[in-house]
Amino acid sequence: MPAFFKVLAPDSALRVLLDQLDLHVEREQVPTHEALGRVTAEDIVSPEDLPAFPRSTMDGFSVRSSDTFGASEGLPAYLDVVGEVAMGAAPGVRLSTGQAAGAYTGGMLAQGADAVVMVENTQAVDDSAIEVLRPVAPGENVVQVGEDVRSGGPVLPTGHVVRPQDIGGLLALGITQVSVGRRPRVAIVSTGDELVSPEDVPGPGQVRDINTYTISALVVKAGGIPMPVALVKDDYEAQRAAAVDGMSKSDILVFSAGSSISSRDMTSEVIGSLGSPGVLVHGISLKPGKPTVVALVNGKPAFGLPGNPVSAAVVFDLLVRPTIYAVSGCASPPEPATVRARLARDVASIAGREDHVQVRLVRKEGELSAEPVFGKSNLIYTLIRADGVVTVPLDKGGLYAGEEVAVRVY
Amino acid sequence: MPAFFKVLAPDSALRVLLDQLDLHVEREQVPTHEALGRVTAEDIVSPEDLPAFPRSTMDGFSVRSSDTFGASEGLPAYLDVVGEVAMGAAPGVRLSTGQAAGAYTGGMLAQGADAVVMVENTQAVDDSAIEVLRPVAPGENVVQVGEDVRSGGPVLPTGHVVRPQDIGGLLALGITQVSVGRRPRVAIVSTGDELVSPEDVPGPGQVRDINTYTISALVVKAGGIPMPVALVKDDYEAQRAAAVDGMSKSDILVFSAGSSISSRDMTSEVIGSLGSPGVLVHGISLKPGKPTVVALVNGKPAFGLPGNPVSAAVVFDLLVRPTIYAVSGCASPPEPATVRARLARDVASIAGREDHVQVRLVRKEGELSAEPVFGKSNLIYTLIRADGVVTVPLDKGGLYAGEEVAVRVY
Repeated sequence: MPAFFKVLAPDSALRVLLDQLDLHVEREQVPTHEALGRVTAEDIVSPEDLPAFPRSTMDGFSVRSSDTFGASEGLPAYLDVVGEVAMGAAPGVRLSTGQAAGAYTGGMLAQGADAVVMVENTQAVDDSAIEVLRPVAPGENVVQVGEDVRSGGPVLPTGHVVRPQDIGGLLALGITQVSVGRRPRVAIVSTGDELVSPEDVPGPGQVRDINTYTISALVVKAGGIPMPVALVKDDYEAQRAAAVDGMSKSDILVFSAGSSISSRDMTSEVIGSLGSPGVLVHGISLKPGKPTVVALVNGKPAFGLPGNPVSAAVVFDLLVRPTIYAVSGCASPPEPATVRARLARDVASIAGREDHVQVRLVRKEGELSAEPVFGKSNLIYTLIRADGVVTVPLDKGGLYAGEEVAVRVY
Repeated sequence: MPAFFKVLAPDSALRVLLDQLDLHVEREQVPTHEALGRVTAEDIVSPEDLPAFPRSTMDGFSVRSSDTFGASEGLPAYLDVVGEVAMGAAPGVRLSTGQAAGAYTGGMLAQGADAVVMVENTQAVDDSAIEVLRPVAPGENVVQVGEDVRSGGPVLPTGHVVRPQDIGGLLALGITQVSVGRRPRVAIVSTGDELVSPEDVPGPGQVRDINTYTISALVVKAGGIPMPVALVKDDYEAQRAAAVDGMSKSDILVFSAGSSISSRDMTSEVIGSLGSPGVLVHGISLKPGKPTVVALVNGKPAFGLPGNPVSAAVVFDLLVRPTIYAVSGCASPPEPATVRARLARDVASIAGREDHVQVRLVRKEGELSAEPVFGKSNLIYTLIRADGVVTVPLDKGGLYAGEEVAVRVY
């Protein structure tokens, strides 16, 4: 390994990669109602006014507002009811002075009307007349044409992760297809002489491969398509062949490295051999997760994740997740879920290193307490017993018991 | 509508429903690697010890710890290296007093060894001997058999939402199939004389149906299977037929009501007619979302959501989402993502009513500011322009500008 690679902070490591990444997002058209979680690949503007007609926001009567001016309970305005406008129908009536027409929430107003009086502010005189007990201003209880969104107005910007309401907003305008970034395919290569498939019974010294599947699930959560490529031994040629294969059919390569130093070095050499510019970062000022490799290989991001499951999960979250979003065209991934909790114990760290501490959340006297799960990062159950993770920032030497912390929940 | 239904707080309305729900979760077996987001339907215990053998946590040498007692840089312990234990292999060597064997992170120890000396704390004398510069305690740098999880020990409890690391934890034990609750099917009936399908061009007074699709996406996010049933007019028989059809092929029924009072009343009557005990709650002390119907129909939950898109989304989150989780066997749904922000303006409310205020998040001088999106709840773009929602609790008359609030992000 060349010796000049600096150990970078996680943020800087990510920036080094993304700054060199030439982002030409590959687009595809999908039906809007299937676009949940996808990233918009273009600015979407409205093809029409929404609503397309003035809509009543109340049940009551559409009126000419000037007919109600000065109306009060003591001196109501008397109006003739000349019909109604049914829901989903064009108005069949036109109001003259002193006239009103029945109106429904979401329905059209009668022609000539400019406001709606709530039914609660009227009193029936007989079948064809009402008293209006309060005045309405022009436009009162009416959604105007284009008040929701105007024709030509912005609907969604490029790089937006589509949420349920966005689907509604697009369909309201008749936009039934949307251009989104293709889901990034993430090739996963797991390495280690000790690994066997989860279906197999491990012999002495062997363990089941779990990183392939944990990483696959993390890829799915981040909106990517996991492509498990191979489980390979600590053999340079075999690893290189798997990496070349993985790269050829994916957008991002993730190597789950072996846990010994020699095995990790091999992974890094393999990644470095794949193309240019090659390895960008070798080592991150992060605990757990220091022995991480970040590379750019002929335009495609490649990562060497530590073999320890806890480290791999932490590094995935900090580096791979935002890269998957970036490759799909989204510069700022959705905020992960966090809750506030009070730290139950002191947590020691070292200034200049970012620590990620697994915690369990326990409700105590109505307050959430974050209890550090002390466990080696090579124990998968450290992650399983945890409800989330607390970050000790780079510039801090630790956190104190009793401090309020943000717990990034799993 | 019978007049005795009390307007309940959202929490109470949910409790009234869930308390009467007879939860017999329907199970199915799925491959563990496809179980992300599914809810475990039984307590899972470990069939074996993990790890199954003492594993080294360091690269170095497995030793008999007593051979290193008292070792120091000034007076190192001299040990003969009699071989190594390769990764994934059984130990081929047994240590006698004064002997060591090469060890790799994650690998087995030599027979007779009880600790591992890190390579950094050794010095090579020649090819077959080392000096140990620091003593190790028995068990040092070793993960013991069952230290991750013991045979018969708890792995995951019933009702747990499977996360990426849980998949790893299960597969590490060879658990390749898992029993989970069947995904609840949620039938969606959209009603309103004014509605047309999103593919159609609305005539005067008509609008495109969006609630079917917004609710479908919310169902997907909550782990359910959306089943859009029909778009029906404000006609009692047509609505009832759609409801009966929807109920017959789903676990939960969601009605998106029309927006006028008469249409809403019809929805409530239709839901009430479907079975017993029928409507449990009619009206919630919530803004927006007051005209909500909660029912239990022959053992299946049914909801009448307000027709306004903003109200429908708020009510879905408070009532339908936790019900979907409950029906799949999870009593406490995952925490939704929240961020802390400072409220940009006063927000008025009324004590005794829970208000949900749409906000936009803006970063100002390094701090997140939550700016209320003022917009009528019948405007879908109120939701689209918002990044999340702030809750004014039942017992508060409002929130003040400058208060720190938790924003539930979309």
